Amino acid sequence: MSDNSFGRLLRVTTFGESHGPAIGCVIDGCPPGIAIAPEDFRADLDRRATGKSRHTSQRHEADEVEILSGVYEGRTTGTPIGLLVRNTDARSKDYSKIAEQFRPGHADYTYLHKYGLRDPRGGGRSSARETTMRVAAAVIAKKWLRDRHGITVQAHVSQIADIRPRGFDAAAIEGNPFFWPDASQVAELEAFMDALRKSGDSVGARVDVIARNVPPGWGEPIYGKLDAEIAAAMMSINAVKGVEIGAGFGAVTQRGTEHRDLMSPDGFASNHAGGILGGISSGQDITCSVAFKPTSSLRLPGATVDTAGQPVEVITTGRHDPCVGLRAPPICEAMLALVLMDQALRHRAQCGDVAPVAPRIP
Amino acid sequence: MSDNSFGRLLRVTTFGESHGPAIGCVIDGCPPGIAIAPEDFRADLDRRATGKSRHTSQRHEADEVEILSGVYEGRTTGTPIGLLVRNTDARSKDYSKIAEQFRPGHADYTYLHKYGLRDPRGGGRSSARETTMRVAAAVIAKKWLRDRHGITVQAHVSQIADIRPRGFDAAAIEGNPFFWPDASQVAELEAFMDALRKSGDSVGARVDVIARNVPPGWGEPIYGKLDAEIAAAMMSINAVKGVEIGAGFGAVTQRGTEHRDLMSPDGFASNHAGGILGGISSGQDITCSVAFKPTSSLRLPGATVDTAGQPVEVITTGRHDPCVGLRAPPICEAMLALVLMDQALRHRAQCGDVAPVAPRIP
Amino acid sequence: MSDNSFGRLLRVTTFGESHGPAIGCVIDGCPPGIAIAPEDFRADLDRRATGKSRHTSQRHEADEVEILSGVYEGRTTGTPIGLLVRNTDARSKDYSKIAEQFRPGHADYTYLHKYGLRDPRGGGRSSARETTMRVAAAVIAKKWLRDRHGITVQAHVSQIADIRPRGFDAAAIEGNPFFWPDASQVAELEAFMDALRKSGDSVGARVDVIARNVPPGWGEPIYGKLDAEIAAAMMSINAVKGVEIGAGFGAVTQRGTEHRDLMSPDGFASNHAGGILGGISSGQDITCSVAFKPTSSLRLPGATVDTAGQPVEVITTGRHDPCVGLRAPPICEAMLALVLMDQALRHRAQCGDVAPVAPRIP
Amino acid sequence: MSDNSFGRLLRVTTFGESHGPAIGCVIDGCPPGIAIAPEDFRADLDRRATGKSRHTSQRHEADEVEILSGVYEGRTTGTPIGLLVRNTDARSKDYSKIAEQFRPGHADYTYLHKYGLRDPRGGGRSSARETTMRVAAAVIAKKWLRDRHGITVQAHVSQIADIRPRGFDAAAIEGNPFFWPDASQVAELEAFMDALRKSGDSVGARVDVIARNVPPGWGEPIYGKLDAEIAAAMMSINAVKGVEIGAGFGAVTQRGTEHRDLMSPDGFASNHAGGILGGISSGQDITCSVAFKPTSSLRLPGATVDTAGQPVEVITTGRHDPCVGLRAPPICEAMLALVLMDQALRHRAQCGDVAPVAPRIP
Repeated sequence: MSDNSFGRLLRVTTFGESHGPAIGCVIDGCPPGIAIAPEDFRADLDRRATGKSRHTSQRHEADEVEILSGVYEGRTTGTPIGLLVRNTDARSKDYSKIAEQFRPGHADYTYLHKYGLRDPRGGGRSSARETTMRVAAAVIAKKWLRDRHGITVQAHVSQIADIRPRGFDAAAIEGNPFFWPDASQVAELEAFMDALRKSGDSVGARVDVIARNVPPGWGEPIYGKLDAEIAAAMMSINAVKGVEIGAGFGAVTQRGTEHRDLMSPDGFASNHAGGILGGISSGQDITCSVAFKPTSSLRLPGATVDTAGQPVEVITTGRHDPCVGLRAPPICEAMLALVLMDQALRHRAQCGDVAPVAPRIP
Repeated sequence: MSDNSFGRLLRVTTFGESHGPAIGCVIDGCPPGIAIAPEDFRADLDRRATGKSRHTSQRHEADEVEILSGVYEGRTTGTPIGLLVRNTDARSKDYSKIAEQFRPGHADYTYLHKYGLRDPRGGGRSSARETTMRVAAAVIAKKWLRDRHGITVQAHVSQIADIRPRGFDAAAIEGNPFFWPDASQVAELEAFMDALRKSGDSVGARVDVIARNVPPGWGEPIYGKLDAEIAAAMMSINAVKGVEIGAGFGAVTQRGTEHRDLMSPDGFASNHAGGILGGISSGQDITCSVAFKPTSSLRLPGATVDTAGQPVEVITTGRHDPCVGLRAPPICEAMLALVLMDQALRHRAQCGDVAPVAPRIP
Repeated sequence: MSDNSFGRLLRVTTFGESHGPAIGCVIDGCPPGIAIAPEDFRADLDRRATGKSRHTSQRHEADEVEILSGVYEGRTTGTPIGLLVRNTDARSKDYSKIAEQFRPGHADYTYLHKYGLRDPRGGGRSSARETTMRVAAAVIAKKWLRDRHGITVQAHVSQIADIRPRGFDAAAIEGNPFFWPDASQVAELEAFMDALRKSGDSVGARVDVIARNVPPGWGEPIYGKLDAEIAAAMMSINAVKGVEIGAGFGAVTQRGTEHRDLMSPDGFASNHAGGILGGISSGQDITCSVAFKPTSSLRLPGATVDTAGQPVEVITTGRHDPCVGLRAPPICEAMLALVLMDQALRHRAQCGDVAPVAPRIP
Repeated sequence: MSDNSFGRLLRVTTFGESHGPAIGCVIDGCPPGIAIAPEDFRADLDRRATGKSRHTSQRHEADEVEILSGVYEGRTTGTPIGLLVRNTDARSKDYSKIAEQFRPGHADYTYLHKYGLRDPRGGGRSSARETTMRVAAAVIAKKWLRDRHGITVQAHVSQIADIRPRGFDAAAIEGNPFFWPDASQVAELEAFMDALRKSGDSVGARVDVIARNVPPGWGEPIYGKLDAEIAAAMMSINAVKGVEIGAGFGAVTQRGTEHRDLMSPDGFASNHAGGILGGISSGQDITCSVAFKPTSSLRLPGATVDTAGQPVEVITTGRHDPCVGLRAPPICEAMLALVLMDQALRHRAQCGDVAPVAPRIP
């Protein structure tokens, strides 16, 4: 069936290939009355964009968002919002050779097996270019979450190879090209990335995402649990290999007395649950951690087969990110925001008239 | 909206509370002609059941499956399959007190915030009792996958607290109460679990799930990727806090030259991808790892609040598992089987007439 | 995929065959806090039941509803509501012969072509027995619509063969076995039906359904329009061949000046629209008309083929309704109620925070 | 939630307002390998377009389709197909006044009640302009149905006011501006329409749609029945007030012996069922009839209220169709084609491996 739509009630459908004429999305189910303008998309699209520093791919896209529908006199009308971004810097010649080879670690082999044909230009549909539209759609979600509920969503890189932040300063995150929360390590990271880039190799990364001020009660047991949908959302991002909520895999070695977050009228004593219990938000911060694999597009040669099944050596010469995780924080934020707004609408549908009976602990 | 259905084309809807009269499910979209009998459910339900060893909860349920519809003369007819399991060993009195307290680490607080009321008996809908129906439904999926595609799905416990298997012997897994792949460690585990149970505390676990013989081409980009749906499926299981595909979080510290699985006419050189590229199966084994938190139901007292918002001390006196992960392998298998069969049908819908053009490497 | 679920946010999944052990349904997405008891189902199930007069099939079913889940201390909890009705008067021997013949006008031929096998007992899944669960599920929807919005849904038979009501008295509808709104015609109808039954033939009927007090604003353009969903809901009922909203086919011969319902501060001047404009409720009565074909199960012989493709003569000897439309009003009400509640929840999801800006005309 | 997507496995999402910058759609789930080019859209879009004769609205749109994605080297790739049509002849000034009035028979009043604001330009989202994208999307569906299954879908106008075709000649339908199957009546219709246009009034119409060569077995009981989905599809078209399958409302006065279509090895003796039994195609022609109301946009004054609730007189001065039904045949064909292809994929998903066991009667 293919499934290029995300969300149940706030439904985002994306389309477009990396080197096709355009990418775009349709946002259906958006509440009416939200103020939105073309320039609102600029900040997050710039945060996600390539070519902003030497540490990312050197593809330069204007990423100009055209609002095609669903907005009238600056406000959403409740009808589907069509967004369009033209591709302008698509150098298809870079990819001409790989049409006949399967790049290891890429979707070339699997797309051809699935569909019987594929668009090889820049990875076609499997390119991370698609995530542009996730970020664009989430601009509206982030706005709604913030304006109506005071919710903020923020992501940062919490590991590159073996390097971890020594400290955590939220204000530092947007001040360096690594979304890194400790400004004192930026020089070290730049040196590391420069050396990596020169080596022709790539490396993985971990991204942490936090949502603050989510009210208790969001999430749809049993199969639409908040954590289940966050896991799917993150895993749908290119290059993701793992997702944790709260303590994550750390919970394997915890004792129950350590893991369970004790409660008092003053609040929870800890947050190993990551703000979700039984698939429903508890009012604590939603915390999520995501593992990104190292880019598979490398100029270091590697063994593979061609479309005739013969062994060949592949070298990827296009523009690529030595560490895709470095551009991932805005995408992770986008997915978390889309999940949260969708869950908010779902909760309102079923429980919109529930009077609060439970005490709210801070 | 609540969402008690799983899957898109093979759609399983479960219902029932831990201490209500019954639990059940409806399986919709199942292909006709599959041979199925009530006794086919026995083996997997017994594997999942409590009370089979002293290391799990001592609730004893017969778990007799009644087929209510969708099967005629021993074969599925294509109409919805209704399955019913009566609850027989539900001791509601054990839970009378907790109706007025929020057990830390449980869904009590969040359910009450969401719905404004809750069924406190045995955790109601949030109890792991619900997973019985996942296992039952997956019996049919496992059969179809095996008979039509030769696919097998197998899970084992790969970590309890700090203990990891020293060796791996698939044949050993079903021979001990821990789904443990190294028989030589069983005595050690029994001692560990006995001590844990006596201490009144609980512990986390890691479960690995493997699907073999999955053909290349299954998975629905972009938002129905095979790995995204596996992540959601696993995260929807009670007590799960993390999911990895292939190298998982290990990919964070890998270099691209190490992570990318090189290819030759003889096959893939490694499987860090976990059998999935671009959200589509590659023909390699699908490998997935799942983190289970320690049970929060403990007879060791803990601080919490009551429904009036006052601080209280809670002790959970019901029957509980000191390590819920120990019973999870059949549930993880079930979820992976349901995802795979659903994806198989989705792939057939869109690409059923695609002639193979790509070479298949073994 | 098969699709045995109805509704998007209030989602009813039915299962069960006419002569299997039981029929049932799962209602997912129901708001919490609705008071519901087993006896609440009695009235509507009796209205739908066969065997209450000599003018319907003589199958006698107790139709006892067992609530399996989702209700605690007399109130819905927001978790899925499982309802079960055991089949008690299923005489499968009546149908033994038809397993090898295709009854004209029945689903025998099409089910066998679709699924490759079928349950022939009493029509299996294609029997109108399935509608029992629609009526049961709608008991909850009717209650919610009435209690929260003052909405009532009422259906009556508006034509049997060529006979039409001379007058309309809503109070008369429930006072005769024909759901007929003019008591003065009941004797005539009884004579007509007695003669029809003796002849061995059957006849069609028209049913009108009206929902009152629906607020303006319900309905989901473009493909979830209120009228589109009503049409699908009615057409999904066994034996339905046509659906009209408001003026229906009468609109074909109307002029625009006649059809358009003029408006004034005192209200609409007419209701040719049937209470729906642009797929959204206008606040006027929702009016719908449904055509039921004559039963195809007849004891008068007819030509057909058997499963070997050979010509045979078929006589249906089971218990059947000479005019299925006579039992349809509760089913039509049920479907309209389910559509309306579902639409109400969908509207609340997207527009729950819309402040009224439009004048409401009565 | 709003629902601007149609279909389950072949999923068409449309967006765009009548007088916004563009309209468009995304087609998801389309099988790969279908040959498609921009010029393939021309014929059907021209058939639907306004301004081709003096009997339709004089809006002149080029309706140039740009393929934004999902097609590579002339073939569908299995990824979402984005189609875009720029609006070029949108005279918004025509509609400036009606922003403050509710046109009787239009969606103005209901949209404002639902969303709290609306785009009044040309009816915004509720304009029939949206159907352009249905026709465009269905070009692909029609091609697939024809190439793979030999299925054709054809619609014609079967009634305008009281005028019905005297004869039926399929070849005549495309030869006149009325999609009328009897060429001898065209002059009469032209005179009728000229007089109607001069009068300032409008009139209703009936459209018949036929699908030929549909194989038996398509349709998804119970709630995804082929006839139920056709009913929803047709009722979702602007101005539709009724839908019939086969005998339709004529079945109300039929006897069972007349209505049931007897069968023999040579085929069915009649087709009152309209090619659908039990919600599944029988192999006979699918026949459907649709009622279109007269346009409500009239230059004859009518009473209404303004947005302040005050009585006003409204005259609609924009460009409108005196009989919208005259442009509806391509739209009805489109909806039937989309339903059929969607059902074909759904059938293949569940029953793709069913070996034929039933005899096929011609």
